[in-house]
Amino acid sequence: MRNENCIFCKIAAGEIPSATLYEDEDFRVFLDLGPANDGHALIIPKEHYANLLELPEELCGKAMVIAKKLAKRLKDFTGADGVNIVNNNGEAAGQSVFHFHVHVIPRWKNDGKFPLWIPGELTDEVRDKLVEEFKKNPLV
Amino acid sequence: MRNENCIFCKIAAGEIPSATLYEDEDFRVFLDLGPANDGHALIIPKEHYANLLELPEELCGKAMVIAKKLAKRLKDFTGADGVNIVNNNGEAAGQSVFHFHVHVIPRWKNDGKFPLWIPGELTDEVRDKLVEEFKKNPLV
Repeated sequence: MRNENCIFCKIAAGEIPSATLYEDEDFRVFLDLGPANDGHALIIPKEHYANLLELPEELCGKAMVIAKKLAKRLKDFTGADGVNIVNNNGEAAGQSVFHFHVHVIPRWKNDGKFPLWIPGELTDEVRDKLVEEFKKNPLV
Repeated sequence: MRNENCIFCKIAAGEIPSATLYEDEDFRVFLDLGPANDGHALIIPKEHYANLLELPEELCGKAMVIAKKLAKRLKDFTGADGVNIVNNNGEAAGQSVFHFHVHVIPRWKNDGKFPLWIPGELTDEVRDKLVEEFKKNPLV
């Protein structure tokens, strides 16, 4: 399926040019135009799925295998010290294009590019509520 | 394989108790003790792999399928507005426990918990270098 108003659908189909690093029948990988660091790439499915929650399981798996291969290659080629794999779902999580995508971001020591979160505390109340819920309704 | 000095190996094996939300023969999912937000959970393989680059492809796929299911469930149960999926590889990328793990982080609008990166610019030089490399040596 395709969404006529989606820029990533157009990039996936090759209608908008992109700096493509990899392509197969299900995915395209291209360089982010607003990179956190050199080599910052995006993995997108060719079909339109708004986010991970909508992505079929088969494509979830394939996306992560591409992420693994890409992370290794980018690290080797750029000489990066590390790599972040990031997938944002929903505007509240920083998603700005609503076509599922995985960011693969090479990182260098002390580059200060992606500060992550400040760790909070796991309270007993939150812990008990969640553990109980997942016991009652196991994830299958 | 197991690493005797690895805290996640001990958690995976149940030797150190954890607030477990899901478990199968390959993975354990439990609540992060230093959460960015309520419901912040970690997906870890039971075998020891330092990071995504070392994780077998089969487990890459399974991890992402668990992330999808978990993201949906956490969002539904906590009423979160969005979810981040994050995997850090290497100290330079913010990895602090060197046993592969995927963070699943519920997010609320304007919670200010995970600022992501400041977008840079994709220069022609970097673009051409990377596109050329991946043409010459395709990712397989």
